[in-house]
Amino acid sequence: MARVVIVGSGLMGTAMAWPLLDNGHSVAIVGTHLDDWIIDSLLANRYHPTLMRKVPPKATFHYIHELPSVIQDADIVVNGVSSFGIHWIADTLSAHLSRGQQVVSLTKGLLSDEQGRVVYFPDYIYDKLSPSVREGSAVVAVGGPCIAGELAARRETCVMFGSRNRAAAKRCAALFGTSYYHVFPTDDVMTLELGVALKNAYTVAVGIAYGMHTPDEADMGMHNTAAALFAQGCHEMGYIIKKLGGDERQSSALPGAGDLFVTSAGGRTMTLGRLLGEGKSYGQAKEVLEGVTLESVQIINEMATVLEGTWIGEYSIDAGHLPLLRTLVDVIVHNKPVEFRYESFFTAH
Amino acid sequence: MARVVIVGSGLMGTAMAWPLLDNGHSVAIVGTHLDDWIIDSLLANRYHPTLMRKVPPKATFHYIHELPSVIQDADIVVNGVSSFGIHWIADTLSAHLSRGQQVVSLTKGLLSDEQGRVVYFPDYIYDKLSPSVREGSAVVAVGGPCIAGELAARRETCVMFGSRNRAAAKRCAALFGTSYYHVFPTDDVMTLELGVALKNAYTVAVGIAYGMHTPDEADMGMHNTAAALFAQGCHEMGYIIKKLGGDERQSSALPGAGDLFVTSAGGRTMTLGRLLGEGKSYGQAKEVLEGVTLESVQIINEMATVLEGTWIGEYSIDAGHLPLLRTLVDVIVHNKPVEFRYESFFTAH
Repeated sequence: MARVVIVGSGLMGTAMAWPLLDNGHSVAIVGTHLDDWIIDSLLANRYHPTLMRKVPPKATFHYIHELPSVIQDADIVVNGVSSFGIHWIADTLSAHLSRGQQVVSLTKGLLSDEQGRVVYFPDYIYDKLSPSVREGSAVVAVGGPCIAGELAARRETCVMFGSRNRAAAKRCAALFGTSYYHVFPTDDVMTLELGVALKNAYTVAVGIAYGMHTPDEADMGMHNTAAALFAQGCHEMGYIIKKLGGDERQSSALPGAGDLFVTSAGGRTMTLGRLLGEGKSYGQAKEVLEGVTLESVQIINEMATVLEGTWIGEYSIDAGHLPLLRTLVDVIVHNKPVEFRYESFFTAH
Repeated sequence: MARVVIVGSGLMGTAMAWPLLDNGHSVAIVGTHLDDWIIDSLLANRYHPTLMRKVPPKATFHYIHELPSVIQDADIVVNGVSSFGIHWIADTLSAHLSRGQQVVSLTKGLLSDEQGRVVYFPDYIYDKLSPSVREGSAVVAVGGPCIAGELAARRETCVMFGSRNRAAAKRCAALFGTSYYHVFPTDDVMTLELGVALKNAYTVAVGIAYGMHTPDEADMGMHNTAAALFAQGCHEMGYIIKKLGGDERQSSALPGAGDLFVTSAGGRTMTLGRLLGEGKSYGQAKEVLEGVTLESVQIINEMATVLEGTWIGEYSIDAGHLPLLRTLVDVIVHNKPVEFRYESFFTAH
């Protein structure tokens, strides 16, 4: 049995407690500096206010100031912060991780460097660790279609655990996997990270389709348009993955089509898309969504940097094969109205 | 401008009238022997009772007995019958088609021969034509995510036109394509046919996921499970397409993920899946759905023949990589309860 410390008591971080506790591991949940109100509630009666249920018995709950002491005993540290906390968590792990402790990272997203080269979150975290800690430690990234609340409801869920250290990915998959949380390990962390990040961008397009709905005598919906954009999104994900050296076939599996499917089922990213589809500019949509964190926007901004960076030639990406991503960049980064270039779709093969 | 005769006045056949009329072609719609009541309504006031709207002006409407005379003047004959009419339409076209007339076929499905070899609908139709007609004629198959009613509402729609005769596919794509009906021609008709047929089978699995829903204190849904089955469906489609000599990458594009997305949005196949997910056997579900034609069931039956046929060795298909299809065969063909083997998923690469 492993001692697991989860840093970040948001939806996804906390939901990981279910499979871990069901497997008999010890679980300590440490809130970030934004999470004190959640830790208050968890300490009072184990009730998580956004998951809307009680964490099973035996987990312990901790405020951020306890992190240095709690983390000391961990075999595994779960990074449960959102993509906006990626720099903070990398610095925090760098400061407190000891040799031999493994990181399982739930944060989804991408970074780009000044040349427009893609930087993967697990590498970013790993590279910040001191050389002596790195040896014997590994960062295992989690990706695939998983709504936190459904995991906490023990719905059947399939995800991938990816690490450049294949043994670590397999070991963590065995520790976390249960009869309802099915974990598929891989050493192709790049493909996994690209899929689960890019799907956030393309979900905006699916949302736009539904937002474009106009009333109709036969009460028809927008599924044809949504499906076309869904397919083009998978197609472009496959192209980007291939060009960056990954396995494009995953664009039709868990990190691609599967994750895009679950994100398209609802949530903040779909809401942003719907507002844009109704004709609002991104600036106007942002006002409506005031205070909501939008990981999709961050991904689209990073991809704009990639598409406009000097490194794009090294990747040999032809942006002409990415008409949907370019529209998303136009809309989100350049505040332009939505205009899909359907005639340019499906050219990447 | 072309003279187009649509045989079959159901949802999809009739919906094709919109792009054709918008392009200025002449359109004659001929009902099958099951469609007299629809033709009655169309002749009375152009109102289509299941599309729930009026066909635009200038189309003409005909009962089945007029077919031999109406078809004579056609440049293009659209096959708009359901998969249950495939033998009838092939015989009818064989009897009435003249040299130089093109067929655009909307029927989705697969057949298998006695050895378990897959027979594609467009080939089946083409092979029944007399040799003198075949020369100069072609069969162009239509596939991709398209709900008929949404096409008739002129929602943006992307489909593929596939024919072994690439020139015919391109010519028909140009004749049918409009500002809202985007047609991508291909000569890889096999991949197209496999994707659009198999997606019907895998939609049953997505439906089962939603049917498995149980009430929950936090009101959680079944999207994780549905997404996992969606991804496994795309993954298996890619594997089957590859083994049969097609382009597996299409499993993440229009004929695969795109078409599976639109079918998963609702309809008879999802209803069948939901009933199975609630715990009904296929026999019980069939009773509830009495009278409803289920193309998905036909596909699963044909794939059972393929999996159990002597030809499977020629395809070098390892059925161990198709755990989801095997579950669907168990449920539909062998009337067994649903049991997904998640641990066997995602092995095909």
